[in-house]
Amino acid sequence: MNYVLKNIPSRTEKPRSTGFTMVMDKGLSLREVSDLIETCGEYIDIIKLGWGTSYVSPKLSEKLQLYKDAGIPVYLGGTLFEAFVIRDQFDDYRKVLEKYELKFAEVSDGSITLDHGKKCEYISTLAKEVTVLSEVGSKDAAKIIPPYKWIDQMRKELDAGAWKVIGEAREGGTVGLFRDSGEVRQGLVEEILTQIPEDRIIWEAPQKEQQVWFIKLIGANVNLGNIAPNEVIPLETIRLGLRGDTFDHFLPNHISL
Amino acid sequence: MNYVLKNIPSRTEKPRSTGFTMVMDKGLSLREVSDLIETCGEYIDIIKLGWGTSYVSPKLSEKLQLYKDAGIPVYLGGTLFEAFVIRDQFDDYRKVLEKYELKFAEVSDGSITLDHGKKCEYISTLAKEVTVLSEVGSKDAAKIIPPYKWIDQMRKELDAGAWKVIGEAREGGTVGLFRDSGEVRQGLVEEILTQIPEDRIIWEAPQKEQQVWFIKLIGANVNLGNIAPNEVIPLETIRLGLRGDTFDHFLPNHISL
Amino acid sequence: MNYVLKNIPSRTEKPRSTGFTMVMDKGLSLREVSDLIETCGEYIDIIKLGWGTSYVSPKLSEKLQLYKDAGIPVYLGGTLFEAFVIRDQFDDYRKVLEKYELKFAEVSDGSITLDHGKKCEYISTLAKEVTVLSEVGSKDAAKIIPPYKWIDQMRKELDAGAWKVIGEAREGGTVGLFRDSGEVRQGLVEEILTQIPEDRIIWEAPQKEQQVWFIKLIGANVNLGNIAPNEVIPLETIRLGLRGDTFDHFLPNHISL
Repeated sequence: MNYVLKNIPSRTEKPRSTGFTMVMDKGLSLREVSDLIETCGEYIDIIKLGWGTSYVSPKLSEKLQLYKDAGIPVYLGGTLFEAFVIRDQFDDYRKVLEKYELKFAEVSDGSITLDHGKKCEYISTLAKEVTVLSEVGSKDAAKIIPPYKWIDQMRKELDAGAWKVIGEAREGGTVGLFRDSGEVRQGLVEEILTQIPEDRIIWEAPQKEQQVWFIKLIGANVNLGNIAPNEVIPLETIRLGLRGDTFDHFLPNHISL
Repeated sequence: MNYVLKNIPSRTEKPRSTGFTMVMDKGLSLREVSDLIETCGEYIDIIKLGWGTSYVSPKLSEKLQLYKDAGIPVYLGGTLFEAFVIRDQFDDYRKVLEKYELKFAEVSDGSITLDHGKKCEYISTLAKEVTVLSEVGSKDAAKIIPPYKWIDQMRKELDAGAWKVIGEAREGGTVGLFRDSGEVRQGLVEEILTQIPEDRIIWEAPQKEQQVWFIKLIGANVNLGNIAPNEVIPLETIRLGLRGDTFDHFLPNHISL
Repeated sequence: MNYVLKNIPSRTEKPRSTGFTMVMDKGLSLREVSDLIETCGEYIDIIKLGWGTSYVSPKLSEKLQLYKDAGIPVYLGGTLFEAFVIRDQFDDYRKVLEKYELKFAEVSDGSITLDHGKKCEYISTLAKEVTVLSEVGSKDAAKIIPPYKWIDQMRKELDAGAWKVIGEAREGGTVGLFRDSGEVRQGLVEEILTQIPEDRIIWEAPQKEQQVWFIKLIGANVNLGNIAPNEVIPLETIRLGLRGDTFDHFLPNHISL
């Protein structure tokens, strides 16, 4: 840190199991990747190449190399996994992971209907080859999954070999964990936390208000995902109580406001 | 493409008459222009320097050279044409086009009231010197133009020499083709399409939901405009069914979801 | 300017006391800072490193040097001042200013409750060492400050040695000068202007509609703040009547629309 402030919450350090930040790259240039690494590489635990953007992005290998050199793992968005599965090309998907030497993969069913047993099979097959993140929650606003089912699915996916489970949101911060308005489904999150260890969950929270909500509920070192590249530094300040939104949240009681 | 996926809609290639993407540059730095070209130059068919931003941007010639070297044509936003016309400086405007060796120009009346016959004269005068895009639709939310009039104006502007006509939106995606909420005026678009060939129209659709709407209605190769630089890669995935929004739109019936 | 247009409002030049633009840097990379300076350095009068972002940003000294070399002063967001004060570390704050050779500082009470006399003491202490910007208005939407109190506080803060007073908004453009909807509290602004000289006020106006509103009320050379880096060029065009929003505002009456 650039100067000393008292009573700042302590942050975990890499490799983090909590306090984890997953950042969304939806088409950064190589230079933007270099900048991101220079500016906030220490705060980024993993990069997601959003949905199928890796299909159309030129210089993909060079981009992956930049992240690799910085020690930041990368995975391809779950929608791409689903695009392969729906086309009966799962083996081709594994070849893509191999070709690009990806060590992480996401298994999701946000856009397809997948029997949950079958989903767990995909997790366990991939878990033999890479570290698997699995995602729970539909991208379809009409499909409301009740809390007991979120918990049941998360547990089974962890049992099948998932390293962490992801609570789904869209890039814009709707559906899944959130109502159409972007508001958090609070009861859902609290019930999940009674059953699943928080270090096994990554909460997708692209909007500032959502990040603030999770930090106030779980603490500075909550695992958050779908963070935009230019919001990594701002998020770090929210985690530390150095932005208005969480300014007084981490102050000890003897400091009167 | 970086790997093989079956049943992906085929995209047109440059020079495109459909499947055309017009991108808005509202003040990019030279380095950002280089990055844009490297990252998605093959997906960009034309660049618009938004409204009067070219008046205040330093290093304009260098920027235009970068786009020229990449084979991407550039035009100045229609509001600038109007700023010259309202000041009785149309000849000065033509000198600007000449000075900067611009091969494309926009004729619009979004901010001024222009007799339609006079507008068509401007189109036909400029069409002798450059390729003209003409724009229909007001920037004033109170001026609702009925469909028959949109069609009549589009037809006359094409007859006057416009290469393509642009359906107006604002940078933020309101007015013109859209309601205040950003919602598409669906009946308007459908009626236009019964009379004007779709390859002669560019639909301004800065918001993701609007892009999705046009792609679902017209197909992967619809002409879209006012795309933000960092949304070119995401748009390309929406065109190809590789983002949740259009994921199942292009899949053949025999692939069950 | 790149070409000649008649009847464009004249803009003040650096060093400006009106027509001032304060830009928010919330974590730009060094390269983005260079780009910002190249692209619109002449339009930027001062940079704010938003809230506590300077605490977590790597290469802070290098960043400050880039701005210094470009002749653009920098100050740290008021929330950081408050973070030091609430921890009883005001002297440490002064050492930070000294260490980084900062010539400007902000005094605010957006997140803490500070006796106004005490706030003025902080202003007058700091004013002996640096140029002080002081900010009026709470970040708490529930704390509505009536106009007479805004005016009283602004006057006392200027008397205490503040160079300019800032009318508070959030990065997103709510609270303080604005309603939750982002709408300007018009009566408040007009009453303030009857009592405080406009060249002593910087209005935080991150949203385009807010910028347009102030420019229409006060003119091309209003002092505006919290401008996002990629909105500096667009703001400049709004000031000059070269974007639809203010297109006809600066045109003389003899030019008919």
